[in-house]
Amino acid sequence: MPTKGASADAADPGTVRPGGRTARVRASVLRAAGDALVEHGIHSLDLADVARRAEVGKTTVYRRWGTTTGLIADLLADMADMAEQSVPRTGSGSLTEDLRSNARLVAATLTDPRQGPLFKAVIAAATCDERTARALHRFHATRIKEWAPCVEGAVARGELPAGTDAREVIRAVSAPLYYRVLADGDPLDDAAADRAAAAAESAARAGAYIG
Amino acid sequence: MPTKGASADAADPGTVRPGGRTARVRASVLRAAGDALVEHGIHSLDLADVARRAEVGKTTVYRRWGTTTGLIADLLADMADMAEQSVPRTGSGSLTEDLRSNARLVAATLTDPRQGPLFKAVIAAATCDERTARALHRFHATRIKEWAPCVEGAVARGELPAGTDAREVIRAVSAPLYYRVLADGDPLDDAAADRAAAAAESAARAGAYIG
Repeated sequence: MPTKGASADAADPGTVRPGGRTARVRASVLRAAGDALVEHGIHSLDLADVARRAEVGKTTVYRRWGTTTGLIADLLADMADMAEQSVPRTGSGSLTEDLRSNARLVAATLTDPRQGPLFKAVIAAATCDERTARALHRFHATRIKEWAPCVEGAVARGELPAGTDAREVIRAVSAPLYYRVLADGDPLDDAAADRAAAAAESAARAGAYIG
Repeated sequence: MPTKGASADAADPGTVRPGGRTARVRASVLRAAGDALVEHGIHSLDLADVARRAEVGKTTVYRRWGTTTGLIADLLADMADMAEQSVPRTGSGSLTEDLRSNARLVAATLTDPRQGPLFKAVIAAATCDERTARALHRFHATRIKEWAPCVEGAVARGELPAGTDAREVIRAVSAPLYYRVLADGDPLDDAAADRAAAAAESAARAGAYIG
């Protein structure tokens, strides 16, 4: 719907025409918000500062995103889009390969020089801000839902037991990678990603995620 | 060594006599630090404020803990002691039961009305403060090391494949529980804990944590 007006865009920024002015403004503002977050953390995030960095009118930013939480929610939506576009989600026909792609994507995101600090800043903010927490939960719910078909395919092919909860398997792939980054600080590399994928697959085959 | 002086206590607060004045001061200060953290987050943590809350001299607090990071590190050490004292770590002789105890302990800690917010505050602080991150990593390393024997016992009994990395198994039990609390917000209850333990055990039996 390329002719949508600004107020419709505000309600659903994901539907704007990719090359249009509204999309360019969004890209500038989200880039500026990411820079500000990585530099100063979420507590100092300020819409007026973001507008200045993005060279966009303050009124535009306030009208479209309203609050820093609205901005963070949109930033998360954008990060999810970017991450998902970079890797094919399903279709290899091999559960092992699909889960490994998923694990490597999560590991690459969490260790990326820009995305990594952004994720950490958002997770930190979510521990003390309910609205940021909800945006983060939606991000994860969307991500898990998008990857679930590779597990459902494996169930349909008889590779995994009937009744396997696809969401639990996808979550099990991500969890050890987040744990390394947030809790025990052990290095997060491809080997750790592959192990997380293999462990989730083994547990799934053994029926640990049924029901 | 109950006759140790204050400066030795500062170097190793864990060795003080439990009932002594030094131990009472430590308990008051750590309780006050926890209150302040839960109320205002780590960014507003201030040694003078903690001293006031604890009704302890400011000089004592500065001399013994030095910085807020030193205080957080000691708070983590104390939380680890408390958590470990509340549940027998090993000795059931059943890997399934040991891993389940471990998972339920982690879940109980993360959902505890006081410990939960404390952990979240420390994890949030660790994302942007290197010294807090190191204290947090040490906390997890200690915890994992203390629980590893239950996995090593299972390897010795032939329940798990030779060469299984005990630390990876313990980490795998915790990871999905932290992920729920920090990332996707799904409820963390006994069922989730039991599933995390069962999944880690299945993966371990299948050899996913060898080497």
